[in-house]
Formats: sequence, C-alpha cells, structure tokens
Amino acid sequence: MGAPLTVVILGGGTVGAAVAHLITESAEDLTARVGRELKLTGVAVRDASKVRAGVDPSLITTDAAALAASGADIVIEVIGGIEPAKSLIESAFAHGSSVVTANKALLAAHGAHLHKLAEEAGVDLYYEAAVAGAIPLLRPLRESLAGDKVTKVLGIVNGTTNFILSKMYDQGADYSEVLKEAQDLGYAESDPTADVEGFDSAAKAAILAGLAFHTNVTADDVYREGMTNVTAEDIVAAKSLGYVIKLLAISELTEDDKGVIVRVHPAMIPLSHPLASVRDAFNAVFVEADAAGQVMFYGRGAGGAPTASSVVGDVVAAARHRVTGTVGPAQSIYADLEVRAIGDAKTAYYINLRVADESGVLAAIANEFAKHDVSIQAVRQDGEGDLARLMIRTHIAPDRRLQATVEALKNMSAVRNVIGVMRVEGIGA
Amino acid sequence: MGAPLTVVILGGGTVGAAVAHLITESAEDLTARVGRELKLTGVAVRDASKVRAGVDPSLITTDAAALAASGADIVIEVIGGIEPAKSLIESAFAHGSSVVTANKALLAAHGAHLHKLAEEAGVDLYYEAAVAGAIPLLRPLRESLAGDKVTKVLGIVNGTTNFILSKMYDQGADYSEVLKEAQDLGYAESDPTADVEGFDSAAKAAILAGLAFHTNVTADDVYREGMTNVTAEDIVAAKSLGYVIKLLAISELTEDDKGVIVRVHPAMIPLSHPLASVRDAFNAVFVEADAAGQVMFYGRGAGGAPTASSVVGDVVAAARHRVTGTVGPAQSIYADLEVRAIGDAKTAYYINLRVADESGVLAAIANEFAKHDVSIQAVRQDGEGDLARLMIRTHIAPDRRLQATVEALKNMSAVRNVIGVMRVEGIGA
Repeated sequence: MGAPLTVVILGGGTVGAAVAHLITESAEDLTARVGRELKLTGVAVRDASKVRAGVDPSLITTDAAALAASGADIVIEVIGGIEPAKSLIESAFAHGSSVVTANKALLAAHGAHLHKLAEEAGVDLYYEAAVAGAIPLLRPLRESLAGDKVTKVLGIVNGTTNFILSKMYDQGADYSEVLKEAQDLGYAESDPTADVEGFDSAAKAAILAGLAFHTNVTADDVYREGMTNVTAEDIVAAKSLGYVIKLLAISELTEDDKGVIVRVHPAMIPLSHPLASVRDAFNAVFVEADAAGQVMFYGRGAGGAPTASSVVGDVVAAARHRVTGTVGPAQSIYADLEVRAIGDAKTAYYINLRVADESGVLAAIANEFAKHDVSIQAVRQDGEGDLARLMIRTHIAPDRRLQATVEALKNMSAVRNVIGVMRVEGIGA
Repeated sequence: MGAPLTVVILGGGTVGAAVAHLITESAEDLTARVGRELKLTGVAVRDASKVRAGVDPSLITTDAAALAASGADIVIEVIGGIEPAKSLIESAFAHGSSVVTANKALLAAHGAHLHKLAEEAGVDLYYEAAVAGAIPLLRPLRESLAGDKVTKVLGIVNGTTNFILSKMYDQGADYSEVLKEAQDLGYAESDPTADVEGFDSAAKAAILAGLAFHTNVTADDVYREGMTNVTAEDIVAAKSLGYVIKLLAISELTEDDKGVIVRVHPAMIPLSHPLASVRDAFNAVFVEADAAGQVMFYGRGAGGAPTASSVVGDVVAAARHRVTGTVGPAQSIYADLEVRAIGDAKTAYYINLRVADESGVLAAIANEFAKHDVSIQAVRQDGEGDLARLMIRTHIAPDRRLQATVEALKNMSAVRNVIGVMRVEGIGA
C-alpha cells in the first residue's frame, strides 16, 4: 500500500465537523475501500478557539488559504457561499488537488468555470452533497442514466419548505404560523428568504438540469416563485381534490428536444404520485427517462451527518482515482441546449375563482379559456350566497397561454376575485 | 476522437433487443458522452430466423461463443441463467473484453469468481440491471455510500410478487386467484416458482448484501421463504392494523458489526413506511446507513426498456474507462463478514391465534412469551363464539426466540390453531 492520501477540510461548521468525524471514525474501512490510507491533515475554521468534538485540535487552523494551497490530494470545501469558497477551490486546483464540495450556490453560479479548471488540472470535482444532502443522486444521473434520455426531473430539494408545507397540510395552518414552528425546531433560518423564496431550490435545479440535459445551466436561468403566497385555503382546496402542494424544482426537455426549461414554484401533485408522500424535511427527486421510465431517489436533504455521508462518498471516489492515477468523466455539456422561458413549459393550472352567481357567467368564463386555446379538464361550482365559487382544472397547455387566460379572467366583471392559481404537476394529461 | 469501441450483445430476447435498439437510436448522444463512437458489431441469438425490430439483420449470429471471444471492447450478456452465460463471460474476460450483464442468478452464484477474473484481466464487470432493473442502485451503493456504514437494506426487488401482493391487498383476493390474473397480464411466468418462492429475490439479496457489507455473499447464504402461504386472511388482518404485506429481501449487519444476515420472506410493514406505497410491479430498495440515515431508490424492476437503460448506463461507464485506459474499483469484499443464520436476526412477530375462550388462557399464553424472553407489544382479543381470536404483536427479539415461542404456542392445548405468523419490519422497536 502506498503513502497516505492527504485530505484537508475548509470549513468547521456542522458539516465540516461531521466530515472530520466520519473520516476519523471510519479510517479503517475507508483505507480498505480506497486501497490507501486517508490522512486528515488540516481543518480550516473561522474561530479556532471553539471546541469541536471529534476533531483533533492540532489539525485546526484559521488559514484556509494556506490549507487550500497545501497540495493535499483532496480538498473538501464546506464553507458555502461564493467567496472565499471560489478562490479557495481555484487555488486547490492550481495546486493539483481534487475538490469535493457541498456548495450548491457556487456550483449553480460558476459550475462550468470550475469544471473547466478541474479538467485542465487533471483532477476531480465532485459535489454530490450540493443537492439533496445524503441522497445519492448526482452520480446516478451522471453515470447510471448516461445511457438513457432523461426528459424531466421533478424534485423536492428543500427540506425547510417541505417541512412547512407538510405542517400546513396537516394542521390547516397558515404559512406564518408554521414558519415560527420551523424556526423553533431549527428547520428554518431566522432569515428564511433563501429557502422560502426558492433561491436554494433554484440553485439545485440548475445543477440537476445541467447533469440531466448535458447543458450548462446557472441559477439565473431558473424561473423562480417562492412558496410564501401559498395559503391555508389553497392547501385545503388542494386536499379536497386529492392533491398536495409541494415546492418543486423542475427541469425538463422541451418537446422539440432542443431546449430545456428550469423552474421552481409551488405546484399541486396528486396524492397518488410518489412525491406526494415525501414529508417533513425529507427530499426526493423523481426522474423520467425514455427507457428507464420513472425513477425516484429519496432521503435526507440536509443535516451534518447525512451531508457528510455524501461528501465522504465523493472523497472515496476521488481517492480511488488518485490511487489509479485517473480522473472521473469531465462535465458533459455537449448538448448545449437552449434555456427557454417558463412560457414554453407545458403544464396544467388549477384556478380558484369567486364569481357572480348569474346566468351566463360559466359560459363567459369557459369562453375565455377557449379563446386562449386552453381546454378545461374539470369544473366544480359551489354556491356562496349570491356569489359562486368556481374551481377549474385545465388540461396541459403552454404556460404562456395559461398565464394569459388568468390575466383575462381577472379583467372580467363577473369574476369578483381570483382566490388562487396553482400549477399542477405529476399528472398524465 | 479515436477508433470506435466495439460492443457485442449475447442474447436476443426482449432485453437484448431493447439494448440493441437503445445503442443504435442514441448513437450520437452516446458518442458525445463516451468521447468515442460505440459500434455494435454483433448480436448472438438462438433463432436467427426470428425478425427483431430495430436490430440490423447483418449483425445477427447464432455463434455466441465466437462473439464472446471476438475481443470486443464490451461484451453484453443478457442470456440469463448459469450456463452458457458463465463460460461466455469467462471467454470474454480471457479476450480482454469488459462485461456488462443483467444476470442476477450468475452473479449471486459465481460473483466472486467472475470479479476475480475481471480484476486479473484488467477489465470491468458491471451488472446494474441485475437488481431492480432500471433503478440506479448498485453504483450508488458501491460508490456514493462508500464513505458511510450501511446497517440494513430492505428491498422490494421482485415485481411479480409485489404485483400479486398489491392485488391481494386491494381485492381481498387469495393468492391463486391473483396469480392467474398476473399470468394473463404477463407479470408472472407460467411456472412462477422462481418469483413466488423467493429464489429471484434471494439472488438479488445476495448481490445487495455483498455490495452493502463488502463481503462475498451467495444465493445459498440467503434464508428464503416464498409468499405462496400468505392468505387473504393475513392481508385483511394486516390491513386492519395499518400494515401491508410485502415480500422483502433483507440484508443486515449484526449488532456486533461482525456478521451479516440475509433473508427473503413476506413481512408486514406499517403503511407509513416509504416501502408500503411501492405498488404493482414497481421495485424499491430502502437503505439505512449510520450517517446518511434512510435513503430509498424506486423505479421499474423489469421490462425490456428499463433493463436496457441500466445496461447501457453500464456500457457507458465501461466505455469511458476504455477511453481513459482505466477500470472501475474492484469488488470490495475486504470486510469478509460471517454470514449468520436467521435465528440471529432481530425482528418482531405478528401472531394470529384461535384459542379457547376460557379464563386463564391469556395468562398462560403471555407466560409462554415471557418464558422465551419475548415481550409483547400489543394484544387484541375478539370473541368468536366459544373461541377467541388473539392477535399479538411482539417487541423486537432474536428470531430464534420468536420461532421457539411459536412452536411452544402450537403445543398448548388452549391454542386451537395458529392462523398466521408474520415478521414485522420497518418499525422502531
């Protein structure tokens, strides 16, 4: 057996500590699996005075730049955010290190740049933990499904919002109420913007789309709607129809096979869909491929130990490559598809209206749908005093036409208010 | 770009034809993903006169031995069974070819031998399609979870029996009735033994256990009970308690970390468990690991196109290695754990008894459990004329003690008959 492979960790937070712990605790197994000892030679932290359980104090340093440039076999970046993470990873590549990171924001913004640097340096760049924490997902997409044509990826990739939506569903409670509970339990940050406004999901959607469609996609390419406008009323209405509301990260191939649409928004999915039973802080990603059909990956999306599991899995892969003197396949962006706007997406809408209870109203409304070439799948009408409540589910149509229909409905005098509009996913037609 | 990589297919059945079709149809994408053209140079079939849609007739041959020995870059074996598949694969290795196979029976019987030959020849042996068809499962277990300690794998890996059990659950019908329907729909063979007696699941369990626990496990090491004795009454009883019955393939680490137990049998799992909603011919594998927690993989377990997706994914992996002149990690069996008997497994039982409705009977029965050091979690007693029906769920205990308890109950005069005994999985304690 050759000399040990050196590993350094940049970042001493929950994930960094869990990674250090896992590498130390499983040393014997990892050595057997890699074929060479993995030696942790440094952990860069912000505050060296803080005690970190399970981390040898002599490994602690505050000089992340020096560790990144130390020429270690593998540099693990778990600081998060764009800078200094980006510069540190660039430095690691420049010094011949392979890099394992959990940094979704960085990958979603500068993935192509970093992949290029890794390829030029002849090293690996792995980031399984960046999407859906513990779930082995990126490697299967990149390698196992490499013989197939993926057509759509539907993901619940943010645990905070899934926890909130699950509680809203169970308790009939409103967003603001449940947010407080999620914050008290540590499932939501004190500033929850990145999660509830869909920024976190959008970064992950960009990464998934890139792998699924062999195209460079950045977070800026992603259409994004958060879930703060989802009301208890929306959820009750969905429930009564056999649907549940989830914040979905969706990437899909357009019908002509030449474009990709990436979008994050709340959507209704039928209770019978495998994603519907993904509750609380769990994540799941549902993949549709021409030959494989429907495949789903499910597990914990966050947390120190689950994230560390993915990080150390990547470390083993990169380390095995060091032992055999090779690297994994480079980023595959040969397809170079055009990223299209959400208006091109094919989806269905669920529209909840309060209308005047007069003769001719339903006909006028139905006519508005027809004018926009949107066909109605189901209508439910309930009296509400001298008003009526209309719940309309459309068939699948281009999102652009559905949006235009909703705008037109808003301008009809018979329509008193549009109570809710929600896209429907996971249905046949 | 270098010379094309040559690929041959041994086996012209549904899967072979689907693989040929996928390789031909996706040629452009595969070339881009591999970095070299994949050229299908032969398909060995039994009956050359049969027309095979999508397969170039000039590629058809009946001489499988010659194709296997042709020195192709990649030999795909989709004949199934032990011979001639084994000899053909041995020949392929001897001629420097990497091998991709979907052959679970062969891998479960001779996996270590074939892995050794592949390693000696410096080529790849991949078999993602051998377990759970289209679901990317073996690569994630081997690579993504390589940094973690897997403790248990629970799988629904046989679509035929899952279809039958789903129908029995929905219709309250008996096995024999539903088997007929499954046969008519093509979900079950005219001789269903391999599926319903658990042989197919046992082969897959052996493969999963080997990967999860870094130990050589063969099908002969697997404890096996089929599902033909599961009655409509069992299912109704399970349903009334919030459980569903599945045929599970279970591999687990023993508590001392030094042994592995591999078993296939019907089991009750709570409706809230993610495996409970895996219905019809779908497969799913639920993995528990120390750091990752619970991870599940879900998708189609069989069928030409789904299986072909996994096969061609493996072909891409092996082809990329050819391009870079390397091979994937060798079989990891360093842990070499002892395979232990099911008596050592920790499980819970659900026992359904008909007893005399006399005073002291419940006490006597409870005493029998206590004598075997098995603690009772719940009891339900219903009158049935001058008899009583007792449904007892135990806490988790060694299977050996649970079995002994059931034997003792059978010998009690107050026990008129043991209506059903079923293991319970997917519960906390």
